[in-house]
Amino acid sequence: MRDYGPRAVAGPRSAAARGAVRYMAERLVLSIDGMGGDNAARSAPETVLQAIEIASRRRPELRFLVHGDEKLLNEALNAHPAAHGVCEIRPASTAIGMDVKPMQAARLKDTSIGNAIDTVKSGEAAAVVSAGNTGAYMAIAMVRLRMMEGVHRPALSARWPAASGGYVVLLDVGANVTADAEQLVEFAIMGEAFQRAVSGIERPSVAFMNVGSEDQKGHEEIRAAARLVRESGVEINFKGFVEGDDIAKGTVDVIVTDGFTGNIALKTGEGTARLVSQLLREALTGGILATIGAAIAYPALKKLRARMDPGAFNGAVFLGLNGLVVKSHGSADGPGFASAIDVAARMAESHYRDEIARNIARLAAAQAAPAPAVARDAS
Amino acid sequence: MRDYGPRAVAGPRSAAARGAVRYMAERLVLSIDGMGGDNAARSAPETVLQAIEIASRRRPELRFLVHGDEKLLNEALNAHPAAHGVCEIRPASTAIGMDVKPMQAARLKDTSIGNAIDTVKSGEAAAVVSAGNTGAYMAIAMVRLRMMEGVHRPALSARWPAASGGYVVLLDVGANVTADAEQLVEFAIMGEAFQRAVSGIERPSVAFMNVGSEDQKGHEEIRAAARLVRESGVEINFKGFVEGDDIAKGTVDVIVTDGFTGNIALKTGEGTARLVSQLLREALTGGILATIGAAIAYPALKKLRARMDPGAFNGAVFLGLNGLVVKSHGSADGPGFASAIDVAARMAESHYRDEIARNIARLAAAQAAPAPAVARDAS
Repeated sequence: MRDYGPRAVAGPRSAAARGAVRYMAERLVLSIDGMGGDNAARSAPETVLQAIEIASRRRPELRFLVHGDEKLLNEALNAHPAAHGVCEIRPASTAIGMDVKPMQAARLKDTSIGNAIDTVKSGEAAAVVSAGNTGAYMAIAMVRLRMMEGVHRPALSARWPAASGGYVVLLDVGANVTADAEQLVEFAIMGEAFQRAVSGIERPSVAFMNVGSEDQKGHEEIRAAARLVRESGVEINFKGFVEGDDIAKGTVDVIVTDGFTGNIALKTGEGTARLVSQLLREALTGGILATIGAAIAYPALKKLRARMDPGAFNGAVFLGLNGLVVKSHGSADGPGFASAIDVAARMAESHYRDEIARNIARLAAAQAAPAPAVARDAS
Repeated sequence: MRDYGPRAVAGPRSAAARGAVRYMAERLVLSIDGMGGDNAARSAPETVLQAIEIASRRRPELRFLVHGDEKLLNEALNAHPAAHGVCEIRPASTAIGMDVKPMQAARLKDTSIGNAIDTVKSGEAAAVVSAGNTGAYMAIAMVRLRMMEGVHRPALSARWPAASGGYVVLLDVGANVTADAEQLVEFAIMGEAFQRAVSGIERPSVAFMNVGSEDQKGHEEIRAAARLVRESGVEINFKGFVEGDDIAKGTVDVIVTDGFTGNIALKTGEGTARLVSQLLREALTGGILATIGAAIAYPALKKLRARMDPGAFNGAVFLGLNGLVVKSHGSADGPGFASAIDVAARMAESHYRDEIARNIARLAAAQAAPAPAVARDAS
């Protein structure tokens, strides 16, 4: 066993001090599920080790605990010698399949996901990253890490490329199917801290997703949530309501909605982007002139592909727990999984949990105040 | 005044007889709001007359009642001599602006939208088409035409291009913000008839939008709606649940959801398609090689643009009323508005209302039956 030294979790450091971390090569330990992904055991160890190699070239301070089938992981490790010095294999006898139901999964022993989460609970690792069964992963993380004080429901938070050049944080994209006014405000608080931690934007703008930008539009829950943000003293740069097309426009930095709507919006966007790419590919390989034109324009088309690459925006965070839980897309390749590792590292180095805790306390204080009982109106 | 002959509405004709209609040049009268659109009075008459010219070249049997400012419409008509013989201007003193609230709009007298709807109520026209203020249009249409017997809520129904080559019908995209199980089934019934009328698909497949395809996923309303379809004897080709990315995949022909989710999904898809187009345009004009390549591949890129052209899928139908109400996108150009006219003509020639009425009666009978009281469970 290699020496990983003491627990390496981000303390409350300033941005300047964060820069210094790299020079000091202070270790930041991340736990990786080595068995998760749409192709699971067949390709997961290879994808994960490739990602670790990429991530540790970018950040030499990273160390990895990789959980799963010892034999498969060691074979993959041998194919990636650069990962040798930064990586420890942690055997787990069980890999949770993609079809296992969440509650069933939570009862399984010695799983790669469960063991990885346990190292976050014990403090051995600062975060966990998995490309495995989302439902199972969320259920086990909730059971073992529990909710942050004052947070009622966790939220799955994703990023989406925007015309503005950056990306929009969208949440909840599927942890819950409903959300009341207070929960929507909690999601806003968590999404704002997530956007700041990963992008470095100092005061991310935040809005609720609605079917119109006017105050009287949409569900009562959303209108009550907007009132609650304004009246509770929660410190976020709040912009009211936005609509579906504002995701791609990048009108605001964080868009908040319930998990049903968010999941459908995210998948509709993904599906549309895939459709356009497919039609573009068909158009540019459908004839001799088109093929020649595409060959000449290849560098520009390659840049476009990089800009829309879902891998670049990989790494959804399961927010609201006592521990940092990052979900990679099940179909992510090595560079894509490395993006999810990067999200985990940035979050671990940030103060996102303190920031969330402070705003949640403001929200709780406002809710406890005798009048106006905004959230009560909404429920 | 030109002679429009007797009321020309589609009766219960067979598909073969429908073909014969063209040869007989039986007139089909449509009412057009000549003043609606994002640029309203400035460009609406010109757009509408251009559309009428295009539509009547395709279908010589069409006749149009165009409502709005007499002077502006006559000027536009003079610029489109081909529209002269098929078009009658009907003066209306008021054009409803895009910012007027629905209930306010419903109280206005002698509006181009209101007068156009009245001709459908009186039977003078078989359908009305407007690119104006959606909320106002829906409110006035509901007040004057009233709901079809047995239908509880109207639904706005849109089309979206699919990888399969055709398009998907998506509803409700914004007439309501919520929908219970019974209303979702009514939307399914109406969307199925709409898809058949416009595309000619004999038995369109139908599914509810959800966050997973398994039976236990999502809101109780959706699960109850799925049970209700299966148990009520409603005659539709029902496929269960689909997810957001199935819109662009074209997994089924009709996707049913509440107006909040549908509106956000549609706008997210539109926004994403626009983003990809913008990035593609930037990529292919961003350098000399890219520009040369794009010029060579131009015919292929033009075909791609036509395939994704929102104008080609223009024409949302406000379903569930005693009269055919078609909404053009506010930013549609002449060819786009002509697509909406085409939707109106196809619907008017179809048996969609009889088909909806038959399935609504089946649903009502199942609801009235003593057990199992499926819809009661859901509410």
